[in-house]
Amino acid sequence: MAAKQLRLGAFMRPISIHTGAWRYPGAWPDANFNLNAYVRLIRKLEEGRFDAFFMADHMAVLNMPVEALKRSHTITSFEPLTLLSALAMVTERIGLVATASTTYNDPYHIARKFASLDHISGGRAGWNLVTTANPDAALNFGQDAHMAHGERYKRAREFYEVVSGLWDSFADDAFVRDVDSGIFFDPGKMHVLGHKGEELSVRGPLNIARPVQGWPVIVQAGASEAGRQIAAETAEAVFGASATIEEARAFYADVKGRMDALGRDRDHMKILPGCFVVVGATEAEAQAKRARLDSLVHYANAIASLSMALGVDASAFDPDGPLPDIPETETSKSGRERAIRLARRENLTVRQLAQRLGGYAGLAMVGTPAMIADRMQEWLETEACDGFNVMFPYLPGGLEDFVDQVVPELQRRGLYRREYEGATLRENLGLPRPANRFFAR
Amino acid sequence: MAAKQLRLGAFMRPISIHTGAWRYPGAWPDANFNLNAYVRLIRKLEEGRFDAFFMADHMAVLNMPVEALKRSHTITSFEPLTLLSALAMVTERIGLVATASTTYNDPYHIARKFASLDHISGGRAGWNLVTTANPDAALNFGQDAHMAHGERYKRAREFYEVVSGLWDSFADDAFVRDVDSGIFFDPGKMHVLGHKGEELSVRGPLNIARPVQGWPVIVQAGASEAGRQIAAETAEAVFGASATIEEARAFYADVKGRMDALGRDRDHMKILPGCFVVVGATEAEAQAKRARLDSLVHYANAIASLSMALGVDASAFDPDGPLPDIPETETSKSGRERAIRLARRENLTVRQLAQRLGGYAGLAMVGTPAMIADRMQEWLETEACDGFNVMFPYLPGGLEDFVDQVVPELQRRGLYRREYEGATLRENLGLPRPANRFFAR
Repeated sequence: MAAKQLRLGAFMRPISIHTGAWRYPGAWPDANFNLNAYVRLIRKLEEGRFDAFFMADHMAVLNMPVEALKRSHTITSFEPLTLLSALAMVTERIGLVATASTTYNDPYHIARKFASLDHISGGRAGWNLVTTANPDAALNFGQDAHMAHGERYKRAREFYEVVSGLWDSFADDAFVRDVDSGIFFDPGKMHVLGHKGEELSVRGPLNIARPVQGWPVIVQAGASEAGRQIAAETAEAVFGASATIEEARAFYADVKGRMDALGRDRDHMKILPGCFVVVGATEAEAQAKRARLDSLVHYANAIASLSMALGVDASAFDPDGPLPDIPETETSKSGRERAIRLARRENLTVRQLAQRLGGYAGLAMVGTPAMIADRMQEWLETEACDGFNVMFPYLPGGLEDFVDQVVPELQRRGLYRREYEGATLRENLGLPRPANRFFAR
Repeated sequence: MAAKQLRLGAFMRPISIHTGAWRYPGAWPDANFNLNAYVRLIRKLEEGRFDAFFMADHMAVLNMPVEALKRSHTITSFEPLTLLSALAMVTERIGLVATASTTYNDPYHIARKFASLDHISGGRAGWNLVTTANPDAALNFGQDAHMAHGERYKRAREFYEVVSGLWDSFADDAFVRDVDSGIFFDPGKMHVLGHKGEELSVRGPLNIARPVQGWPVIVQAGASEAGRQIAAETAEAVFGASATIEEARAFYADVKGRMDALGRDRDHMKILPGCFVVVGATEAEAQAKRARLDSLVHYANAIASLSMALGVDASAFDPDGPLPDIPETETSKSGRERAIRLARRENLTVRQLAQRLGGYAGLAMVGTPAMIADRMQEWLETEACDGFNVMFPYLPGGLEDFVDQVVPELQRRGLYRREYEGATLRENLGLPRPANRFFAR
């Protein structure tokens, strides 16, 4: 296959990002917190040759009013590192990406746990490095206020250096286990990090061998200026948030351009925008599924989302009428205009618009397998992305539809693997194994 | 079975505590860091109906001189919570106890990860709450000096309150998942902890349902005065360190007496001393196995342990002669006298004594299955313990000998289960499920 290959991650925490997902006919209402469901779903994703199973993370209950919160299927979730360690035992090739915050963690714990997951899974771990946006998290970690954005990114950069330095504590061939001489490892191949920086002080060495992949794959979401720069410097996969192909191309060009400027090979980072996919036998069927799903978002949740997007109280609008003209406000102009454009383009009532925003309103591909493959191909071939982090509308149906119908179409077009290329996440993503900074081979 | 039942844990980190274990003929030299080995061993322990698989933890490379360290098979180890989550998927009934420090952790992380392990394993998690004795850990967590003993215990006590309070964030029946009404959970059954104490400030709620067991089983090692008291107040299993039956009876009476004084049911704590077991077809064979194992401890490591125990430099002694008379020093008198008594009782040369101390010198049962069962029975029936945390001399042989030979002997005597009584660790240990402090049923 000579064509550029599409990479696919599955965004699985929450198991569906759509707030109505758990109510969809035939869906498992407890899918977000059912181990057997996760086992079945990850095996299906592996059958679909997905690169990775991707777990977001939250270090607090989502901060929304309790009237909205009580309808959220995300309220109880497995913790990512324990769950992925368990799922490693029921899969063989799919990558396991866990999110972990650099703001509310110690680098020694993070380095150890990801190294352990990488060894448990035979080299399939990835670390999605985030700085944590939910200010309620601070209150769960002994702090009164959330760390400022700039300080969070400064700490994140140093945290990454410490964690990757700890992963390099031992040369890959440090453990000789010579039964006759009784030498278990060569101390000349152990490095004591001795890090003393502005934010962190960590001695080392780590008490676990270097990860199978050298380092787990480094993933980031980085949309802000600081986030893009740290991604260009360190990330090997980026979970993008572009809503349109134009935005995505601009983001792609910007971040890959930063890599060029840094002397990094641009193929050593895969940009994967989040993409909500609804599959139907016809376009109309797919659209009807989405409309059905949106209709399951409670109006109280929906109208709150709409009011927030518009910057006005939308609760007085006629739910079944068209969106009235909205005056300019101090709110984010782009969010307001996006909502207005969406309502006009799809001819949505206030209720439908509100339910779309309260369900999921980012990048979506809704149609037949061929239509979805067409769009994915266009994004891939015009440098809008290297693949997608797919979000499923409801479980298990939405995921099974994708694997059974869209994946074969992508394979027929030569855009997507039929078998895994390698044993590790790095090998499957086509990423190099990092050299040990302390021990050249 | 009317007789008081013996409880058995398996102490598995390091996978053998004996420093010569990895060199024993037929042993797996990499057993301490081989996932397939762990899978085989935990399945064997489950076949032997063990209550629990017990993982110690270290948050630094063990602080010993590099000349000794390089012979240690503990230098690279899996991290306990990730490993036990993986092992949960290949077992059905055995408990999974992980050690986690209250000194170098955040309670929100600990509460979440143990709750997640408990849900993943269907109610088999236990938390061995330690305050961390290795001062090198401080250096890996941004601190210059190790927290003082008293302060560590004060923090531990508060940490336990916060973690158990977070586990009680939701009533057991909070999650209604009513598809028709769209109500996922009842907010009246969610409690916001709002803890503000001397050491910790944690808002809550936890973002995961109450553990299957209510709380994972609380385990402690507590030998000091502060440790015994916190154990009497909070522990449901105690990993004891008594070396003789007299010491064990005194410890048992003391801790259970403290429970009486607190109004706790003394059956709601199981005291399990660590016990190194070497099985042979004859006593002589078992003793020979142990001597062989001790002989695999390098003399440099051994003599350092002996010098430390005696408080004198033992390197000038004739290795193959008897232990000379040792003058009194400022060193711990009990350690010196124990070493001298051991040498006289077993008629050991300096080398043999040093290798015993450098290998493993605590409570050991070395003999035929019947002899071992006799001693375990005596300990159980004379209130020296409620069972043992068994340590194996080498892997897999030492563990397989125990399961295949000692377990059936204990079963024949009616002292030990033939089948698990329940599905959870609490049910198997005969411990009550804690009430939710915020939501009475």
